[in-house]
Amino acid sequence: MQTPLLAELIDALRVLPGVGQKTAQRMAFHLLQHDRQDGLVLAETLQRALRGIRHCTRCRNFAEETLCPICASSKRDASQICVVETPADVDAIESAGVYQGQYFVLMGHLSPIDGIGPDELGLDALAKRLAEGDVSELILALNPSVEGEATAWYIQNMAREHGVKVSRLAQGVPFGAELEYLDQQTLAQAFQARQQA
Amino acid sequence: MQTPLLAELIDALRVLPGVGQKTAQRMAFHLLQHDRQDGLVLAETLQRALRGIRHCTRCRNFAEETLCPICASSKRDASQICVVETPADVDAIESAGVYQGQYFVLMGHLSPIDGIGPDELGLDALAKRLAEGDVSELILALNPSVEGEATAWYIQNMAREHGVKVSRLAQGVPFGAELEYLDQQTLAQAFQARQQA
Ligand SMILES: [Zn+2]
Ligand SMILES: [Zn+2]
Repeated sequence: MQTPLLAELIDALRVLPGVGQKTAQRMAFHLLQHDRQDGLVLAETLQRALRGIRHCTRCRNFAEETLCPICASSKRDASQICVVETPADVDAIESAGVYQGQYFVLMGHLSPIDGIGPDELGLDALAKRLAEGDVSELILALNPSVEGEATAWYIQNMAREHGVKVSRLAQGVPFGAELEYLDQQTLAQAFQARQQA
Repeated sequence: MQTPLLAELIDALRVLPGVGQKTAQRMAFHLLQHDRQDGLVLAETLQRALRGIRHCTRCRNFAEETLCPICASSKRDASQICVVETPADVDAIESAGVYQGQYFVLMGHLSPIDGIGPDELGLDALAKRLAEGDVSELILALNPSVEGEATAWYIQNMAREHGVKVSRLAQGVPFGAELEYLDQQTLAQAFQARQQA
């Protein structure tokens, strides 16, 4: 017979992706039994993170200030913008260590069925940045999926309208793979051999 | 490039059992991207639960008051105590709906390697309860593992010292199982414990 509060905790844990009833119960028991202090740290960190993390006004990546560390850095080449789907993709490319330009994080890809169009991906902001004339190359590093391809095609046309050169990661990224899980070597090679689109 | 706060959140999520770096990252992105409000509810519920849930002073199960709802109920037969390893076992037996007695929740089993002896399982409190003389039957419902068996053996001796009758859940063929796929151990026990039809 679960106490009401325990039932509430199990229910609340199910907000986490991939966590069903049984897993949530196991998590709740574990925290109550072995890790109350760490559980309280998790609760407090969740509150600070969910309230404090916003999106960079320039590239849409997660940020704690108006600009993310990459957009705020004077060491990054503002004439190159690498367009990715998620913050995890930025991390993957950064750890490959071959790119010194800036990013634009779509936070998804075009998906009309889910109501995700150009506006939801912030493409108006990207268009504005291209119109400013400081960008000389747009590197498309989208996932090699049907939606990723459609999104790439859309952005490619947009860049051409602004006369900006577009390149894409070299073939070698296997079809169906997710960038976030690629090894550094593969990612580095794909970057260096990127081709004009 | 993760923001410090995002890195902190991913790290904090790893306190959850079975959650590694990649899963924690996926959870953090999901909450930040789609479920900030539910994430804040989780944080607040975690705090209330980890601070408010204690252990029933009588049976050691999770409780919000001094006594858990079962120990506090006048409808439960205090002459029977069913000994289980975890609160989840109590839930399972309660949902079977065949038991009207009380429980004693060990919150584990004897495991000398992990430093878990009789004291850690609260067996002194159980002995005290047996000594009071109100208990006529102790039902052992421990897991059929090596540790569960050792724990059952220990408690069985304790109960005999207090002249309390001990019974154990019948071991045998689970309902709906196919004999052909049963392990030898289960089948052997079912055979040895065969009952006259
Ligand atoms: Zn930025
Ligand atoms: Zn109780």
